[in-house]
This record gives sequence, structure tokens and C-alpha cells, in this order.
Amino acid sequence: METKHLVVLGESFGGLTFCQTFNHPLARVTLVDRQNHQLFQPLLYQVATAGLSAPEIAQPIRSILSNRPNVTVLLDNAVGFNLVEKKILLEKNTLTYDYLVLALGGVTGYFGRPEWEQFAPGLKSLDDALRIRRRILLAFEKAENETNPAKRDPLMTIVVVGGGPTGVELAGAFAELARHVLKSDFRRIDPAQARIILIEASPRVLSHLPPQLSASAQRQLEKLGVEVRTGTKVRNITQGRVELEDGQVIEAENIVWAAGVLANPLTQKLGVELDRGGRVKVKPDLSMPGHPEVFAIGDMALVPDAEGKPVPGVSPAAMQMAKHVARIIRDELAFGPARSERPAFKYWDKGTMATIGRSAAVAKIGRLEFNSWLAWVAWLFVHLIFLIGFRNKLAVLLQWAYSYVAYKRGARIVTGLSDEARLKR
Amino acid sequence: METKHLVVLGESFGGLTFCQTFNHPLARVTLVDRQNHQLFQPLLYQVATAGLSAPEIAQPIRSILSNRPNVTVLLDNAVGFNLVEKKILLEKNTLTYDYLVLALGGVTGYFGRPEWEQFAPGLKSLDDALRIRRRILLAFEKAENETNPAKRDPLMTIVVVGGGPTGVELAGAFAELARHVLKSDFRRIDPAQARIILIEASPRVLSHLPPQLSASAQRQLEKLGVEVRTGTKVRNITQGRVELEDGQVIEAENIVWAAGVLANPLTQKLGVELDRGGRVKVKPDLSMPGHPEVFAIGDMALVPDAEGKPVPGVSPAAMQMAKHVARIIRDELAFGPARSERPAFKYWDKGTMATIGRSAAVAKIGRLEFNSWLAWVAWLFVHLIFLIGFRNKLAVLLQWAYSYVAYKRGARIVTGLSDEARLKR
Repeated sequence: METKHLVVLGESFGGLTFCQTFNHPLARVTLVDRQNHQLFQPLLYQVATAGLSAPEIAQPIRSILSNRPNVTVLLDNAVGFNLVEKKILLEKNTLTYDYLVLALGGVTGYFGRPEWEQFAPGLKSLDDALRIRRRILLAFEKAENETNPAKRDPLMTIVVVGGGPTGVELAGAFAELARHVLKSDFRRIDPAQARIILIEASPRVLSHLPPQLSASAQRQLEKLGVEVRTGTKVRNITQGRVELEDGQVIEAENIVWAAGVLANPLTQKLGVELDRGGRVKVKPDLSMPGHPEVFAIGDMALVPDAEGKPVPGVSPAAMQMAKHVARIIRDELAFGPARSERPAFKYWDKGTMATIGRSAAVAKIGRLEFNSWLAWVAWLFVHLIFLIGFRNKLAVLLQWAYSYVAYKRGARIVTGLSDEARLKR
Repeated sequence: METKHLVVLGESFGGLTFCQTFNHPLARVTLVDRQNHQLFQPLLYQVATAGLSAPEIAQPIRSILSNRPNVTVLLDNAVGFNLVEKKILLEKNTLTYDYLVLALGGVTGYFGRPEWEQFAPGLKSLDDALRIRRRILLAFEKAENETNPAKRDPLMTIVVVGGGPTGVELAGAFAELARHVLKSDFRRIDPAQARIILIEASPRVLSHLPPQLSASAQRQLEKLGVEVRTGTKVRNITQGRVELEDGQVIEAENIVWAAGVLANPLTQKLGVELDRGGRVKVKPDLSMPGHPEVFAIGDMALVPDAEGKPVPGVSPAAMQMAKHVARIIRDELAFGPARSERPAFKYWDKGTMATIGRSAAVAKIGRLEFNSWLAWVAWLFVHLIFLIGFRNKLAVLLQWAYSYVAYKRGARIVTGLSDEARLKR
């Protein structure tokens, strides 16, 4: 039997899990991604808020897969498909596949207002996180240099749009940064006077959790000094200005967007039916309608769960999908195409959690609900366990222990200034 | 007695040491710098070679000085002086001083060929290091994607110009990266086939050390696979091409410049006599001729040692100068201007060392000379001790231990790609 070629697009949680799980002597796998690293998205907000450094939540993809000789990694960008001839067009290459796994993840979505991106950056990549870190830290530096109080206030205002887990975690971490970490480091301004405003369109933050946990999360945020505005919609965003639906205007040097996720726009080139978020409406086995050799997983796929609701775009779901697809392909290579229907994907919800700050978090695991320190400890452990790489686990544990004891943050470093300066030229 | 205002330009080793040493109830200090962090230069090459992450060798300057309420930190850029009126012009402010300490350090010098910089970047800032790291890692990725061997070879060639400590340390670390760290991570190329070429104009590397240590360093480099070319001058550098004085041409995707240091070009605005490297020819007390209230220290000052040779531009020298100036100013504030000459600065040479790789280094401490592992262990300890911040010490120790045991590097992460892409647009 000839060797089969599997192409995996994207080294997201799903793509990487697939490469780590799948193994068959008669198959070789090519993993294609634009980045050289696997990023641990759940801790990305800690890079943006100067708690962790970029390499601590990222691992070189080649290093993770070095013990998988049947996996080739290519740093390249997919630009199109020819599903009939089973080809993918990359910027530098064209690959022919027997099986294709789409795992490119999501991008920040602006609800049809892409022009807001320049004023309110999202948080999807390490570059995004480093840019937000730089701008937030520089805003306090500018405020220290500013003698006009009217100009100083917007510099010390941070608006976070979107009260999902990322928005809540960002707002909490910004508040701690201003109130505790930076407290005694300035002479002219008082960073504790900084305003952190969290805006959420729906009636409560963390709306995927039960109402009492949302309420607890809001209380914990307010205790940290975050102004939480639920039921509040954004009408427009321009440079340093957020205009709300009720006409109110907030001036803020830093506006961070944590409101929407869209599937990677490459799905639009597939020529298949997509949902509003650009996700592929896959069959129960996660394959694309009409193309049993093409699978979409993670944030690229719209999959209904047992109750008919879409499986949420979280990393455990992507990893479960990857394992499901790996099993299907392995079985077909071992035993030939299935005679009956392929097995349907079943999502197992392991629970959900969000951290708000020091000893503050909410979690729902099965029917159990936690808030405050027990949820926080659970959050720490779960994230450490899933972080890839022993070195990263140890480094992050060290940073957290240090931050907890010293009330400092290890990555308060502004880099990329010279690149920004070159951009302005 | 009225409060005196001291302005320190630059948070180099010298500037920071001054702020940490100087203390007088009747003085306030303003520290001005473009960066928000103090950078531990001696380990910068490890960031460029993916061994350490940027925040591990940098500390927020405000955090270091948060327990010094008489020190104000301003993130700003000095653009000019008015020495007669004792004023400094910053981009956003003008400061009036009673004493001025110039500690802006050095910049990369290209021996009158500034156009080489775009093809052969130097290594002075974190941004420089992150850019070199990105380009080196991407070159191997491009090579993996390249099917034409003639195009592949230059991608796997790194030229380091300059055989001083930085050049030797870079070349050794690049060789280890290619030969050991990346060894099993590629499928089409063999990173161990990469060429690392170290070019030095003078007859031997590390020419500030005794000849037998230079010879030992060269042997250790060659054992790692570095091609060492001493007595070799560069005639011209263009994109991906180094032309040597003998007409030979080396094609290399990455050329790193480690050959020259100039004083910060701001010295040219002082209107005083400078040496060829742009350094201020200070008086024995480190003050500027004609301006006893202005001092230059570190890489900005030309100071003769006991034998009449210039004090080398190393961090221990800068720190000793800072302490000397702090003592002079404190004494004058306490007892009034000295009736006799101010004391002259005396440089105490604590020794010098350079690391080449795993268990490979050379060191000269007093009359003692070391090579191989004893020098290497000494190098590790000295650098850990002088690294500022308990968290950084621990984090770097952890990284080193991990690299030693696992033969991996923790910071093989490409960031800033999107900034580069925006630059190209």
C-alpha cells in the first residue's frame, strides 16, 4: 500500500494535538503554519499585562514534534485550495494531500467594523500581546511626563470591550497592574487612579456561565476597581475614543478589543456553506460536506453538541476534535474506508473557568460551581498542566510565585519601540 | 540650603549605579532614558541566539528605583544641551540642572560605513537582539522550504564580523544552536551543516587578552565548528554578501556586526573635544573640561588608566566611575566645593572573561589565566551575581540548567513578524 499524505493547516491546539496523536506507518504528515511556535492562548492575556514573557507561553513547534520523524513542519501561509484535485496553494509551495485537516483557529472579529481594529487591537497572537503591553506601559510613562491634567486622564484610562473570559481576565489584570504593581514606581502620577472600564453588550459578564457566577465575577472585578458596564453597546470607536450607544463618550489612550472571534478567513475560499462567524458547517464526523477527506476542527468548525448548541471555541474542544479526526483517519488507513457511517464527534465539557486576579476566579466543573480562591487555585493548576513543555511549566510557576510574593510583574519591558518608530517614518 | 537638582542621562550600568549609590537629603535626581528598562548587556547575545527571553535580562527601571523616592524617572530623549545656562533639551521637556551625569553608553560603530548597518545589524538593544533572533530562525525555516541547493547554502551561513567578546560569544552560541539545538528538528535540511564564520581584522580573537588565551578561544570555537578567520578585513557589505579585502566573497543570509563601539552621538552636541570614537576627553575626576558640574562616565568617557591606556568600555568600569562621581557630588553637597583638586578616578581591573559555549570559556583574573570549564563556571557565577533582580537571577539559572540538561533553548520564538510585514508594505 502506498504512503498517504496528510496535510494539517495550523498549529493551533487542534493542529498540534492531531500531529501528536496521529500515527500510522503508511502516512506522512505535513504541518503548515505562519508561526514557528505553538502559542498557549489561555495565558496570552498575561503577556499583554506584563506578567509573563512571550517565550514562556510559546514552544517552538519543531521542538515539540522533533520526536515525530513522520511529521514535516513548513513555515508557510495557505492562500487557496483546489479541493477537486486535492491541492493546497501555499505562498512558496503547492501540496497535494490525501487527507486535509483545517485547524487554523480564529481571528479577532469586529462585527462588520474592521476599521475599529487600528484603534482597538485584539489579542490573538504574541505580537498582539507585545503591542498591547508596550502601549499600556508607555501610556503611564506619557502620563508621568504630562503636566496638563485634562490630557493626563485619558492616558490613564483603559477600556476593554467584551466581557467574555478574555475581557474579564484582561480587565482584572490591568487593574492589578495599576493598583498594585505600579503603585510606588511613579513620582508625579498615582497609577492607582487609573480607570479600567469593562464594556459588555449583554446583561452580564461571562454569559456562558450561570448567573450567580457572573454576578460573583462582577463583584470581584469591582473590588479590584474595574468599572463594569453591562448591557452597554459600542456605537463607534476612533483614535482614543469609545462612543457608546447612549451617546456617552469615553476618552482612553488604550482600547482593547475582546468581543468577537471569527474563523480564519481562509474558510471563505473553500466554497462551502459557512455560519455568520465564518465557520465551516461540518458533518457529525467533522468532515466537510461533499469532501470526506477534508476535516475542519477547532474555531474553524461549527459543530452542534448534544443539546444542539454549538460546541464552544475553547481549547479542550479543539483537542477533542483533533483526536476524533486522528482516530477516523487511522482506522481508514488500517481497515479501509468505513462501510457504515463514520462515528460522530461528541463533546465532553470538562468545565469552564476564568480568573479575575490574585485569589479571585470563577469556575464551573460539572454541576459544581466555585468562586474566589478555590476556583483560582484550580485555574492555576489546570493551566500549568496544559501548558506544553516542562521548562515553560517551571518558568511560569516561578513567575507566578514571584508575582504572588513580591506583588511585582516580571515582564514590564517595552520592546519593539524602534520598529514602531520605523513604521512611523 | 536649597535643594540641588541632579540630572542623569541614560540608565546604562553607570547611570543606574549612580542613582542607586548617590544619596543626599538636599538633592533630587532625575534619570532620563529612552527605554523603560535596564538592560544586562553582557547576556544580550543569549537573547539573540534564543537562549534567554528579553524580560529575563531586563528590569523595569522604575521597579529597581521604586525605593528611592528622591529619584524621578522620565522616559524621554535628550536632543541638545545649553551648558552655559545648565539646561538639557529633551523631546518633551527642558530640564535645568546643578549637576549633570552623562551615562548614555555606546552605539554600534561601522568605521565610517553607516550604510552597512542595514545589511549587518549590530547588537546593542533588546530590539536588535530580537531582530537577529527572528532572522536567524527564519533563515533555517526558509532553507527547509528551499529546494535549490545553491540558494540553500547562503540561508545556512552566518557571518559574525568582529572577534571581540561579543563576536566570540555570538559565533559560539550560533554554532551550538545549529549543531545541537536544532539538530533533529528539520526533515529536509541538516542544521549541523550550517556555516558559522567569524571574521576578525587583527591577528587574533579577543586581542585584549594574552595570546595564549586567544589561541585557546580560537581552538574552542573551531571545536564547535566555527570557521575563524583572523587577519581578515572586510572591504564591503551588501545585502547577503560580505566582500573581503582579498576579493573573496561570502554569501550569507545573516551577517551580524560585532566590530565597533562608538560613544552615543549626543556627545557631538556638547561642543567639547572628543576622541575618534566620539568619547569625551574628561579630566581625571571624570568631569568635562571647563564644566566641573558635568560628568561623563562609561562608554561616553575617554579615561586613561594607570598605564595611560584607555579604561575599557566594560560594565565594571562604568559602575566604578558612577560610584566615583556619586562620591564627589555628595562630598561637595556636604562640605562645599573642594578646596584642592577633586580626587582622580582609578580603575580597578577585576579581570575579564568570555564564554564560547557549553563548558567552554576563557578568563583572566589578576595574573591568573583560565580556560575551558573552570572559566566557564566562573563566567556563569559572575553573570548571575551581577544580573539585577532576584527573579531574573532565578529565571536565568533555570534556563541555563534546562539548556545544559536538555540541550534545548527556551526562546526559539519568532515574534515581530507582523511588524516586519507592516514595514515592508
